[in-house]
Amino acid sequence: MKDTSMNKQADRLLFVVDHAGTILFAMEGAFAAIAGNLDFLGVMVVSFATALGGGVLRDVLIGATPPQAIRDWRYSVSAFTTGGAVFILHQFAQQIPSQLLMILDAAGLALFAVAGTQKALSYSIPPFIAILMGTITGVGGGAIRDILLMHVPVILYTDIYATAALFGSAVMVLGRRLGFHPMLAAVLGGLACFALRVCAVWFHWNLPKASAP
Amino acid sequence: MKDTSMNKQADRLLFVVDHAGTILFAMEGAFAAIAGNLDFLGVMVVSFATALGGGVLRDVLIGATPPQAIRDWRYSVSAFTTGGAVFILHQFAQQIPSQLLMILDAAGLALFAVAGTQKALSYSIPPFIAILMGTITGVGGGAIRDILLMHVPVILYTDIYATAALFGSAVMVLGRRLGFHPMLAAVLGGLACFALRVCAVWFHWNLPKASAP
Amino acid sequence: MKDTSMNKQADRLLFVVDHAGTILFAMEGAFAAIAGNLDFLGVMVVSFATALGGGVLRDVLIGATPPQAIRDWRYSVSAFTTGGAVFILHQFAQQIPSQLLMILDAAGLALFAVAGTQKALSYSIPPFIAILMGTITGVGGGAIRDILLMHVPVILYTDIYATAALFGSAVMVLGRRLGFHPMLAAVLGGLACFALRVCAVWFHWNLPKASAP
Repeated sequence: MKDTSMNKQADRLLFVVDHAGTILFAMEGAFAAIAGNLDFLGVMVVSFATALGGGVLRDVLIGATPPQAIRDWRYSVSAFTTGGAVFILHQFAQQIPSQLLMILDAAGLALFAVAGTQKALSYSIPPFIAILMGTITGVGGGAIRDILLMHVPVILYTDIYATAALFGSAVMVLGRRLGFHPMLAAVLGGLACFALRVCAVWFHWNLPKASAP
Repeated sequence: MKDTSMNKQADRLLFVVDHAGTILFAMEGAFAAIAGNLDFLGVMVVSFATALGGGVLRDVLIGATPPQAIRDWRYSVSAFTTGGAVFILHQFAQQIPSQLLMILDAAGLALFAVAGTQKALSYSIPPFIAILMGTITGVGGGAIRDILLMHVPVILYTDIYATAALFGSAVMVLGRRLGFHPMLAAVLGGLACFALRVCAVWFHWNLPKASAP
Repeated sequence: MKDTSMNKQADRLLFVVDHAGTILFAMEGAFAAIAGNLDFLGVMVVSFATALGGGVLRDVLIGATPPQAIRDWRYSVSAFTTGGAVFILHQFAQQIPSQLLMILDAAGLALFAVAGTQKALSYSIPPFIAILMGTITGVGGGAIRDILLMHVPVILYTDIYATAALFGSAVMVLGRRLGFHPMLAAVLGGLACFALRVCAVWFHWNLPKASAP
């Protein structure tokens, strides 16, 4: 099933990108869990789910089981170490400016969207669905976190978030269609996602809602 | 794994039935999302999840990965197009009589229950479990929609709904056991589900609850 | 993929342990569903999800699809029979002392944690992840039950519960590393989980929470 032409270099890049995203998202999961008054294990579970839930969901959906995050223990170690560090240092971590957190989150979103799209394409998923899989990789962990903490997933009603992941994935797929080098397409996709997300927060862009009847 | 005797005609029928159900359920998902005050993307996500969540769940459970709705882009296009159309036209869509919506929903339930049972049987799932898989296909999308919108899934406490799907799937499996032509068994199962659901609404049938202690 | 050296005796033991855990957890699911005022089918669904959800989640994650509980109809029969019996007899069932229920639940947790770890190891999952899979097997059903009933999963903030499953799984994996007979390692792991859980309830042990900032 797996496209064997996906070379080692791309694998290594995917690994680095995945771990960077994992650490960023585990941090956010830990903050949300601490705000929700969970105990140490709850913080670890929510960190893990936020960081790796999107990728696990993607892998189950594209049939890449066992998911990477289950097969390879380094992912869970990254997530748990980050969650544990935030738990211990949260007095300091609380002082990170929210603007910086937002930018880190946008970076995590971009990294995961690109990595997810790349993986779906390498499993011969049709391009249109690969865009959805990139989006799910980016936003799935946050949605699982919200459901565990009993909030309506923030991606469903908030400002442009999933839209940014969708846009970045689409740019990446389009770039490859236009014959760009895969690496260039990935970088463009990631930048598109990141830029759209940051601009949406700064300029308060929102998607339209259906007006009340 | 897949039973190759399942012929092309059955596949084509399954395809038509699946898409009809997808469109009906995407409509309902979009209505629920608009009522929940979600933005455009939220409406699309909930339409997608309501329409295709049951089938994706079934496919993951029977090991048919990647699920049909991920492998074949036409399913998501059906769901998104319907969700988008409801979003744009919801002023008109709101005026559809609720009785008609209920009947369309019962039809969608019957279509999905039958299609889900058929697919599980074609993957050599034991008949008793195939009935459960048909039920999950019918009600899974609605349960995911309710969880995303933070309601207790309506199927867990409401009038006869999942029961109708279960009944239709059971009739279909029983019909095949009795040696009926698969097509006849499927039609009987679908009619049984539809009729039970519509009668339950009209005559206010409910399942018993355990009396308070 | 499956380690063929896993012998028949271990399979049979796993089967007995799994069914004992299934019945205990189906009972609890039925109680929670009746307390949540669900109808008969809702009680059945929640019994099923509580009893088998953890194992299904584990099997999907380790790539053992279709999950055991789907492939083998005896699991769902155990869960449904138990759920139905509690529904009918709940007036009597309500009178079971809560201490006894807690002890039965701790036993179910220990059985599932050990069975889940064993299964993950037999699918060549790395030991560290096998511990997580044992934990998920133990607590996953309860978490799904809580989400269906719209509670924040109790495992995320309550006293030592998932921790006990994690501890038992870790003891089992460690025992095997130290060269113990697999059966001995499993018994030690189960006892460790059971003892930690019961002591935690009796002595009101809790995990630390991050102090408010």
